[in-house]
Amino acid sequence: MPEELNAPWLTVSCFALLGRAADSESDPDEDAPEAGTKEFFSSWALFILIMLLMFALFTSYILQQKKIQAVHETVLSIFAGMFVGLIIRLSPESPIQDSVTFDYQFFFNLLLPPIILASGYELHQANFFRNIGTILTFAFAGTFISAIVLGLVLFVWTRIPLDGLNISFVEAISVGATLSATDPVTILAIFNLYKVEPKLYTVIFGESILNDAIAIVLFETAQKYADSDAGSLTVLNLFEAIGLFLLVFFGSMLVGMIVGIMTALGLKHTHVRRVPKIESCLIVLIAYASYFFSNGVRLSGIVSLLFCGITLKHYAYYNMSRRTQLTTKYLFQVMAQLSENFIFIYLGLDLLVQRNLQFKPLFIMVAVFGICLARYLAVFPLSKAINWFIRYRARRRGMEVADELPFAYQAMLFWAGLRGAVGVALAAGLTGVNAPALRATVLVVVVLTVIIFGGTTARMLEILGIRTGVVEELESDDEFDIEVTNGGTYYKRSDTALGYTPRRMDSTIPLDGVQRRGLDRNDSYSSGNNRRPSPPPSSSGKARSASQAIRDLFSGGSSGDHGAWFRQLDEDYIKPRLLLDQSNHKGPGAV
Amino acid sequence: MPEELNAPWLTVSCFALLGRAADSESDPDEDAPEAGTKEFFSSWALFILIMLLMFALFTSYILQQKKIQAVHETVLSIFAGMFVGLIIRLSPESPIQDSVTFDYQFFFNLLLPPIILASGYELHQANFFRNIGTILTFAFAGTFISAIVLGLVLFVWTRIPLDGLNISFVEAISVGATLSATDPVTILAIFNLYKVEPKLYTVIFGESILNDAIAIVLFETAQKYADSDAGSLTVLNLFEAIGLFLLVFFGSMLVGMIVGIMTALGLKHTHVRRVPKIESCLIVLIAYASYFFSNGVRLSGIVSLLFCGITLKHYAYYNMSRRTQLTTKYLFQVMAQLSENFIFIYLGLDLLVQRNLQFKPLFIMVAVFGICLARYLAVFPLSKAINWFIRYRARRRGMEVADELPFAYQAMLFWAGLRGAVGVALAAGLTGVNAPALRATVLVVVVLTVIIFGGTTARMLEILGIRTGVVEELESDDEFDIEVTNGGTYYKRSDTALGYTPRRMDSTIPLDGVQRRGLDRNDSYSSGNNRRPSPPPSSSGKARSASQAIRDLFSGGSSGDHGAWFRQLDEDYIKPRLLLDQSNHKGPGAV
Repeated sequence: MPEELNAPWLTVSCFALLGRAADSESDPDEDAPEAGTKEFFSSWALFILIMLLMFALFTSYILQQKKIQAVHETVLSIFAGMFVGLIIRLSPESPIQDSVTFDYQFFFNLLLPPIILASGYELHQANFFRNIGTILTFAFAGTFISAIVLGLVLFVWTRIPLDGLNISFVEAISVGATLSATDPVTILAIFNLYKVEPKLYTVIFGESILNDAIAIVLFETAQKYADSDAGSLTVLNLFEAIGLFLLVFFGSMLVGMIVGIMTALGLKHTHVRRVPKIESCLIVLIAYASYFFSNGVRLSGIVSLLFCGITLKHYAYYNMSRRTQLTTKYLFQVMAQLSENFIFIYLGLDLLVQRNLQFKPLFIMVAVFGICLARYLAVFPLSKAINWFIRYRARRRGMEVADELPFAYQAMLFWAGLRGAVGVALAAGLTGVNAPALRATVLVVVVLTVIIFGGTTARMLEILGIRTGVVEELESDDEFDIEVTNGGTYYKRSDTALGYTPRRMDSTIPLDGVQRRGLDRNDSYSSGNNRRPSPPPSSSGKARSASQAIRDLFSGGSSGDHGAWFRQLDEDYIKPRLLLDQSNHKGPGAV
Repeated sequence: MPEELNAPWLTVSCFALLGRAADSESDPDEDAPEAGTKEFFSSWALFILIMLLMFALFTSYILQQKKIQAVHETVLSIFAGMFVGLIIRLSPESPIQDSVTFDYQFFFNLLLPPIILASGYELHQANFFRNIGTILTFAFAGTFISAIVLGLVLFVWTRIPLDGLNISFVEAISVGATLSATDPVTILAIFNLYKVEPKLYTVIFGESILNDAIAIVLFETAQKYADSDAGSLTVLNLFEAIGLFLLVFFGSMLVGMIVGIMTALGLKHTHVRRVPKIESCLIVLIAYASYFFSNGVRLSGIVSLLFCGITLKHYAYYNMSRRTQLTTKYLFQVMAQLSENFIFIYLGLDLLVQRNLQFKPLFIMVAVFGICLARYLAVFPLSKAINWFIRYRARRRGMEVADELPFAYQAMLFWAGLRGAVGVALAAGLTGVNAPALRATVLVVVVLTVIIFGGTTARMLEILGIRTGVVEELESDDEFDIEVTNGGTYYKRSDTALGYTPRRMDSTIPLDGVQRRGLDRNDSYSSGNNRRPSPPPSSSGKARSASQAIRDLFSGGSSGDHGAWFRQLDEDYIKPRLLLDQSNHKGPGAV
């Protein structure tokens, strides 16, 4: 039998070792060979892991049933992990504790991709493009400000020789980037439950997924200078770093979009949709190929995957067989859900078990203060700038508009800045003498923000008087978000006593199509299968030329809606070239 | 950064090393830290792997389009793997070759479970239970005979000191078990394409999935005696081994069934189906929990997983939300498809690259002769016995029946005995001085059978005059096996020019329901969502008592149909207790 036990999941070494502890109780007269014994340990380890995941998911269901919102499954997962961590910590065999680490590779290659891919795929594209300006401002400028401010706070603090920590500026910026990635998981789950206003929802969702990608690229850019000469940064270096950052970000974005567009074209010009099983597998493989290709050419796989997901959903989705549409959507969702829970269990465990951590209470408190300050300085000034810009543009056309982001939204954006697992995974990549202290800080800060901000978000929504229970004008395109009642009639889940609402970022279907389907269930097959973007809604009235569309880009479009120019271009020029042309019965891709 | 690179998929070490070879061409001025470099290698490795998978799947689609059946994607995958293997072999860096092995753990914990689970889940239950007697006879007695015969052939041959091999009896039986696991993948894909008669299809499918499980248990039972005293077996040991085998097999089966039944009850008595995302994740986790639990208590995880899949589909499936039904089905299918292709790529690669193999041409030829003889002695005598038994039972009731298994079926059963990846994975677990030679033999024999038998199956069907193009009376329960045509009308894929037919083992829906749904698409929502077993078909006419149902078990049931007693018991007593009671509007689980 192979002597090396480097099989996949077995990297969850803590669980494997936990398994060994469990084994000491079991029958000792078994003289199985070494590999068999190891397999046996890992079975128990994985079994316990699965039980923890099931516990977290099932408790989350119970909480939803009982309408308890203060505690979220994220927090439950962390506590479940901490509980197991405590057992390991208290168990007599100390060597166990040495081998528990947050495995950087494991996280980035196995756990994170499904979450990012699902985010891109489930993005509510209409709302996203409508608010693209706001989202990009927060994602780019916001993350940048946050990383720099937090970095400066930490750097300046460590000039005071109180904690014995003396971190370099590059280290400070790295930690700043690490703690600037806000977590989309917890906050959105709560927003979903409360049916928060779509605009706020979209801005927070868009920002949180984009800023993960941006924080990763920032961190990696900073790390490139970590080894050079003790982490000093000249002004020249700074510009170089910004150039590198932009190159990596937009290069990766381009890779993802090209892969998505090629897929749409491939599906249009072949008949793979006739063999949905193969088609589904190909879509999954293509998404992962973009991820690994980008990593291979030293770009950011995460950014590529995000934009590949968005492009796939925006174009290729309409060329897929209905079965593949459902398969890919459900597959990505399930994988993302399991990954998310696993990450938080892992976080909790890591916090209590890992020995390679050095807790500096003062430094942690400074970091907590730092992230609040950084978030404050990112959210409020940028919101003011956005409000000013929108009002300025409206005035130039002789209109008067309300604040794009009223104070309540700004406060909520601030509150929604809880930090997530991406930060912890990035922190695992820190090197040098200060790494244990920095890692511990990041870990504690992340867990604290998830528990404190996550636990109080629901209350905050009330305090700020943000409109909740908004009946979405756009419903999910998923006809299986319906339930059978006793009498055989159907109701959308959002109508149930449970208060559950289908995820809001599911659909790219124009309003009319959805409403018709919602009302007329018997007809849902034909509309379900013909599901595709209809001609642009009559708000613009007439088709415009491409040059005008591009002119609109700079003048801000014909309305307050920032994405209008793109949608126009998309409907008139891009989609006709990429999508199956079913209505006209022509084109090479017609069945 | 962590210095150890034991992340998940990176066990595919061959690809990682391939990546290193590719790296030597890339920019050498990059002085990234060690872990980053490793991640970079593994990205290329995984990218190449994904490309290979995409190549195999896409070529398979092309072949289906062109209606070329002699070459199957399995064979393509093997050749794709061999091609890459050849490149590695010819590349100057020899250390690469040392690190390529078929990773036993990786296969059994990551690649095999999805295939087995999907097999159980997609099993055509009505046909399966109708032919359960025949299937169990072949699976148990057939695999047993095959393992013993092949073991004896190899053992006797190695008494002649020609090859320098001197294997023990336990080793011989182990190899026998290894090469008795027939492969369900290739043969069934071809059968699906040709729409072979359902009875033959069901028997071959049922045998091939059960005998994987039985071969694994046989192998493991034999291995328990490998270390004891140089592999000698006394008669007492033999009985003990048989007892152990039966204990493990039925114990594992029971675990799987209990997990499945508990799940059905859990879904019935909670409202998890209102939160389909959580529900889907729970089902996936539950299936894997049964696998790891069984492995943990030293039973066979594969057997548990198979029966857990069958039980989940048979009971729990009807208590799930429609969305979870689709999610689990599609998820298992995609995972199984990817795993299958990956396994065959891996096989091809292994054949050319692995150094820890010792090819003994004579021994391989003897093994090929041996598997043919073993399969012959398993198939034909057992078929005669089954034919005799069915005729005898019919005569006792004064009826005269045709052969249960006519000669053409027997010949096809013989031909369908190609060996698969389970054998190779088991062979990786062989130890001792003879292991390299035995492993090489198993690998070559498996690849040969897949290419030869797999490639000629289509021709064999013609020669034997087996009825193909049979329009199934039971269609898939999957309403997305339909395609949109230009005019917006729908047709089942089985009617297309492509000749593709939806998989046959998809449905447990009674005939009337399916046909109605097929005809009346507008109504498919109500029938689709109410999908559940209707009251037992009127063939039996009246409900019978449980005691009579059990009496029928021993008398053989009221018809030639061996599973009738079980179906009766199931419909009258088990299902009412396990399934949601929607028609009567009562019971604690009603919505």
